[in-house]
Amino acid sequence: MKILIVGATGTLGSAIVNELKPRHHVITAGRSGGDARVDLKDVDSVRRLYDAIGPVDAVIAAAGSVHFGPLGDTTSAQFAGGLADKLLGQVNLVLEGQHRLNAGGSFTLTSGIIGDAPFRDGTNAATVNGALAGFVRNAAVELPRGLRINLVSPTVLEASLDAYGALFRGHPATPASRAALAYSRSAEGAETGQVFRVGY
Amino acid sequence: MKILIVGATGTLGSAIVNELKPRHHVITAGRSGGDARVDLKDVDSVRRLYDAIGPVDAVIAAAGSVHFGPLGDTTSAQFAGGLADKLLGQVNLVLEGQHRLNAGGSFTLTSGIIGDAPFRDGTNAATVNGALAGFVRNAAVELPRGLRINLVSPTVLEASLDAYGALFRGHPATPASRAALAYSRSAEGAETGQVFRVGY
Repeated sequence: MKILIVGATGTLGSAIVNELKPRHHVITAGRSGGDARVDLKDVDSVRRLYDAIGPVDAVIAAAGSVHFGPLGDTTSAQFAGGLADKLLGQVNLVLEGQHRLNAGGSFTLTSGIIGDAPFRDGTNAATVNGALAGFVRNAAVELPRGLRINLVSPTVLEASLDAYGALFRGHPATPASRAALAYSRSAEGAETGQVFRVGY
Repeated sequence: MKILIVGATGTLGSAIVNELKPRHHVITAGRSGGDARVDLKDVDSVRRLYDAIGPVDAVIAAAGSVHFGPLGDTTSAQFAGGLADKLLGQVNLVLEGQHRLNAGGSFTLTSGIIGDAPFRDGTNAATVNGALAGFVRNAAVELPRGLRINLVSPTVLEASLDAYGALFRGHPATPASRAALAYSRSAEGAETGQVFRVGY
């Protein structure tokens, strides 16, 4: 398979590359690193990425940021920023990709545990993650030509505990290599419209 | 109680007013009708509304539109429009209202059945509705001073069958008066962080 991985230089993206590269033709893309450059927030940038790489069999997104902070201090602009980045960014990959992937190909997007459980400072993340679940379950019945779409929702990664551990007290962490398996399951399996929760 | 109802002139909003007005001080607001004017997409407009009406005990939103249409034809701008209107509009009511409601007050937002089940043409709606569920469940643990927040998710209303019936074949419709009860349950009860599904 020819597989595009966006956000491939991050902790999770690197693990996905390690999982898939031994048996597939992997193209990496990111804001500042990888085989190609893309800003998912900008649909024209997404279009140019697809133009540059040609038809692919699978698209994996492990990119996107949200606003973390107390709801009481959150501004409308900060909230909108998370919607534009992690949510609409990944949606743009699907809107532009749905006419370009090879028949039977797949999209795999990334959400996270926040929202399945409530977390302090996490309301923007919970909103974006809930949105992605709604998007994936509904897009699965609308996509043409046997295209599939799934969502991977990992708990906190072991490698992220230094940065985010305080937010996730009491939650088990999972190795990035374990989370990466869910992307393999999505891209190499037959499922669609599913949310793969990893490590919780 | 002093209750603000936004979107009070719509089918659902009118039914909510009918349910609550006999026993509460109801203030209605909307884009083009009601006691006060507000454009929820514009956070400054929301701020001016709260300034004008003073502290309230409950805020109810029955407003917001999304994009309906095949995913294959949906543009990024159309998709973003639904996020800005039905999602961020209702979020703005909470972000601005959380410091102004009387202690123990409540927010009640509105989603819908699309996303709990997948529907053709409904991916934008499913995304927005999933986002609202994530928002409400997480905001419930972040809101200060005993403030509560719930989400009402009605199936198609009987009064909307002429306009939307074709989208909802095989789904029972519910009277707007039945859906209105869920807003009473949220505003007049003790629950928080809940999704009240009505008629499905």
